[in-house]
Amino acid sequence: MNTVSSKAQAVRPGRPRSQERRLAVLHAAAELALEDAAAPTMDAIATRAGVSRTTLYKWWPSPSAVLLEGLLEHFHESIELDDALPVREALTGQVDALVHLLRDTAAGTLLRGLMAASSSDRTVGEAMLDTWLRPRREHAVHHLHRGIADGSLRAGTDVEIVTDALFAPVYHRLVWGHAPLEDDLAERICDLVWSGIAAP
Amino acid sequence: MNTVSSKAQAVRPGRPRSQERRLAVLHAAAELALEDAAAPTMDAIATRAGVSRTTLYKWWPSPSAVLLEGLLEHFHESIELDDALPVREALTGQVDALVHLLRDTAAGTLLRGLMAASSSDRTVGEAMLDTWLRPRREHAVHHLHRGIADGSLRAGTDVEIVTDALFAPVYHRLVWGHAPLEDDLAERICDLVWSGIAAP
Repeated sequence: MNTVSSKAQAVRPGRPRSQERRLAVLHAAAELALEDAAAPTMDAIATRAGVSRTTLYKWWPSPSAVLLEGLLEHFHESIELDDALPVREALTGQVDALVHLLRDTAAGTLLRGLMAASSSDRTVGEAMLDTWLRPRREHAVHHLHRGIADGSLRAGTDVEIVTDALFAPVYHRLVWGHAPLEDDLAERICDLVWSGIAAP
Repeated sequence: MNTVSSKAQAVRPGRPRSQERRLAVLHAAAELALEDAAAPTMDAIATRAGVSRTTLYKWWPSPSAVLLEGLLEHFHESIELDDALPVREALTGQVDALVHLLRDTAAGTLLRGLMAASSSDRTVGEAMLDTWLRPRREHAVHHLHRGIADGSLRAGTDVEIVTDALFAPVYHRLVWGHAPLEDDLAERICDLVWSGIAAP
């Protein structure tokens, strides 16, 4: 009992500092990657963040996982959950932010590189899902459920398919390059999707 | 003048044979790729098709270009232009055929590999566009224009965005793996898109 309680006490004051170091690592990973438009090594991240390589591997299973969580954190405002906004505006904003971050920052090149790596390395694919796509999709799904609840979207809206239809065209254009990531892309996608899901 | 006309005569009877050899090359490329779930070399394609490597490079700029045209040819029935079908049925059929060819044949693995290669090799990306995506998109756009013309789709339908919305989710799921390529995926995507584009 005593041991447990003294352990808890030992851990408690450490928490905020470890949280700070964790954020320092995420910032370092995102900064390095966006500066060089290339995935940084664990060593480079550790050096910039001032933590040991061992600590890094204790917290993240792979360089891709640190990098993706760093990017998620860095671009977090692009998926902020502002429930005061009408659902359509919130989601158009998220699609538009994705267009801009893939087109106007090194994130586009970085994500293309990670997608390429994921075709031969399963751990990269898992990191991409867990630390990039799923958290971003959850925010979109949250807004869609909010729309169904407030009556602005049809009951029975297929939220998974709607989320694919909203965001997949942006990634699709990034990968294939058949058409550019235009300024009005988000608006055009949302126009199409909303005519399908807006409550009558 | 004489030279030109005798050249034309010399070329004319050769045409069908050269067309046959061209098809033999495309079949060889697709067969080898689908057997091994890997891009074949120019040498392997030339050997199987019984043509010289030089001939191959005369007709196609790169191994990816032969392979992609071979796959396009092999899966051509998945984008047949059957104008007797109602537009919705024709397009749902195309999306469904894409789901099955990416999920149930080695084409999924092959296309993922080519997408990966295209992130560092521009010629692969160009071959993917010219000999896979654009011809397939053109068929979809053809049906959408047919629908606008016959009044089943709204005038002013944004055919480029609709084509993205129909097909991008399938490629997106292939690349990210956040959700499976389900049997009813085409139906669900088309349900969503049609509520947005069907004429009132």
